Amino acid sequence: MPAKNAFYAQSGGVTAVINASAAGVIETAREHPAQIGTVYAGVNGILGALHEELIDTAAESAETIAALRHTPAGAFGSARYKLRGLEENRAEYERLIEVFRAHDIGYFFYNGGGDSQDTAHKVSQLGEAMGYPVTCIGVPKTVDNDLPVTDTCPGFGSVAKYVAVATREAGLDVASMAETSTRVFILETMGRHAGWIAAASALAREQDGDPPHVILLPEVPLDEQRFLDRVRRSVEDFGYCVVVVSEGVKTADGRFLSDQGTRDAFGHVQLGGVAPVVAAMIKNHLGYKYHYAIADYLQRAARHIASATDVEQAHALGRAAVELALAGRNAVMPTIVRESDSPYRWHIGEVALEAVANREAKMPEEYIDGSGFFVTEAALRYLRPLIAGEDYPPYRDGLPDYARLRGQRVARRLAPFGT
Amino acid sequence: MPAKNAFYAQSGGVTAVINASAAGVIETAREHPAQIGTVYAGVNGILGALHEELIDTAAESAETIAALRHTPAGAFGSARYKLRGLEENRAEYERLIEVFRAHDIGYFFYNGGGDSQDTAHKVSQLGEAMGYPVTCIGVPKTVDNDLPVTDTCPGFGSVAKYVAVATREAGLDVASMAETSTRVFILETMGRHAGWIAAASALAREQDGDPPHVILLPEVPLDEQRFLDRVRRSVEDFGYCVVVVSEGVKTADGRFLSDQGTRDAFGHVQLGGVAPVVAAMIKNHLGYKYHYAIADYLQRAARHIASATDVEQAHALGRAAVELALAGRNAVMPTIVRESDSPYRWHIGEVALEAVANREAKMPEEYIDGSGFFVTEAALRYLRPLIAGEDYPPYRDGLPDYARLRGQRVARRLAPFGT
Repeated sequence: MPAKNAFYAQSGGVTAVINASAAGVIETAREHPAQIGTVYAGVNGILGALHEELIDTAAESAETIAALRHTPAGAFGSARYKLRGLEENRAEYERLIEVFRAHDIGYFFYNGGGDSQDTAHKVSQLGEAMGYPVTCIGVPKTVDNDLPVTDTCPGFGSVAKYVAVATREAGLDVASMAETSTRVFILETMGRHAGWIAAASALAREQDGDPPHVILLPEVPLDEQRFLDRVRRSVEDFGYCVVVVSEGVKTADGRFLSDQGTRDAFGHVQLGGVAPVVAAMIKNHLGYKYHYAIADYLQRAARHIASATDVEQAHALGRAAVELALAGRNAVMPTIVRESDSPYRWHIGEVALEAVANREAKMPEEYIDGSGFFVTEAALRYLRPLIAGEDYPPYRDGLPDYARLRGQRVARRLAPFGT
Repeated sequence: MPAKNAFYAQSGGVTAVINASAAGVIETAREHPAQIGTVYAGVNGILGALHEELIDTAAESAETIAALRHTPAGAFGSARYKLRGLEENRAEYERLIEVFRAHDIGYFFYNGGGDSQDTAHKVSQLGEAMGYPVTCIGVPKTVDNDLPVTDTCPGFGSVAKYVAVATREAGLDVASMAETSTRVFILETMGRHAGWIAAASALAREQDGDPPHVILLPEVPLDEQRFLDRVRRSVEDFGYCVVVVSEGVKTADGRFLSDQGTRDAFGHVQLGGVAPVVAAMIKNHLGYKYHYAIADYLQRAARHIASATDVEQAHALGRAAVELALAGRNAVMPTIVRESDSPYRWHIGEVALEAVANREAKMPEEYIDGSGFFVTEAALRYLRPLIAGEDYPPYRDGLPDYARLRGQRVARRLAPFGT
């Protein structure tokens, strides 16, 4: 039987290390030409399959593929595009199979979060039903760290490291000027539903009194008075206060704190960060001078300060995905299995896609401090190894030298989708 | 004549490399015990002298002082505190001399921007007049790059590198997801009066179409319609648009763009960044999905991605300040003199404090592109060498291992100031 080709797609919000997984997939596939032909990558993820827009990764040199390991964001394009259920939307799934068949694709590697694992699972089922079986393997990815079963998700360790480093550095800045300038600094992090990213800022604290002084998590409804008391106490005790706030923090009645109905001069609702809301609260009630930073995409794109552990795991999971496929496994996802915290030991495991699809892993309650404003030692034990190690990209002219793909398209063989 | 002691103080907004200058001062002073006794550092800058709060740097190990080279922010504390003119405020200047006399201080090294050079100059004059001559040497520092004469100011090269790296990384992120998600990304940088920092983002562009696509500088009043046209064109041509905006951008009638009279739900004026204003402009007129980041202190504290050139210059200027003092110079500041752009060659020069005090260097007009939305090749030639080289701090447990001082105080010899 001649080697089948493979299809690889990136899905959802990109990370500092998703391309390291891509490198792991492509490099490993290249090592097995008897079993896997060409790896085609979807332009903008799954949309690339629907629209038959495929990148021929065989046209990329070994050097370029290796450089993906140190290149952030989605080199082939990613998409926020969730295929609906098979019943409502059979046409899209059938189109995927049709494109796979047209390009002799026998392997589908889908690099994404819970939604994507669900899609990969459904494709696996439908291919079987349509008489065109496809080996579907998930590759985990999400800065939100919310996939179940796996110890962590590639992308999270690096954003965690970014946030911890930023907290330590900005903390030193504020500490050194608090006497005559800013008393309160607020760092807004990602994390709409889970506080993992904000929680990681706690790693910056080495000694009592070190920042961060307050962490606001989406898991803990904001008690404004207790929060303000805590800020005031920090300023009184240490001269300043560093607050790390997750974008998803909610009020006691369940609204997002960032949804304040703020309007600009034109009367338009201002969709804005949560940091300015927290800042205004502090200014209005305590009167302290404040500054805030909103890291936004900088945090998840910050390959320059990626966690070496995260990069290694991302690459290893890409490699493992191909190895699972070659071993005849189907509808599974490789996972990280933690053996010990310190030293951090882990190996690659696997889980059925069905068991991870659309399931969200929450931060355990025992990771949140009794005050609700910090994390526990158990959380720190879990988080610490995930940010360990530096893995610097090469630099040219003072800037990271990130990969540029040729991005050669594969000739279309089908009529456009929907015609 | 026994060796006189020295007083070192940090002033104004701190940077990623001001402590490297401190290391240069202290290490060089230690090499000349016959001429310089102990270096005392002011707690919170010049306030430390007024309140006779001095740190005995002799109590810090050579390792700790060396570690200052890789530690951001102001290790001794800095202050936003400008001494007024000699006439209005003679008492403060006399107090400085009194404290210097009490601690046998014959050298004053003041590490700051234009205001600080003015103060150092006045102290030099008054010491003379009061019969207690003090050798006053300025050490340049400011992320704003607005000191005259010197090629650049320590602190700027590192914030420039941070902004260029952030622009490249976030640009890749947005590019990879623009098809189904964010079309416009806005990065707000520091720079209230000059656009140097925002301009440095242009270094991220290697090829046509690379981000940044638009730079908004305080030097160019915002023409909203032309700006929106440019954003739309970028989205049409490249699929996305990265805007870098200086916090000091003004409207045609001279108001800060960030001053929009925005009010929160309580009717309080929202003091906010300029990024959300630009974002709302784009959303309301073009309808694109946007994201924005406000780097705030993260940019100037980011020692983890400091420019090696900047670190080297900061340290060299600290060293040079002491060497100038030992050579009998007074009321001067060492400077960076550029010999060539590429390769970047420079040496240390000097300038009279009088010539830099309270003078602001603007970005030259020929550095701004005719469109007003980008910088010229001349600007890039100037900027490029300033971000060259990486100078990573050591790491422990995944985080930069920054210096912690013992901070031993010198016993007071005077009554409190103002009693």
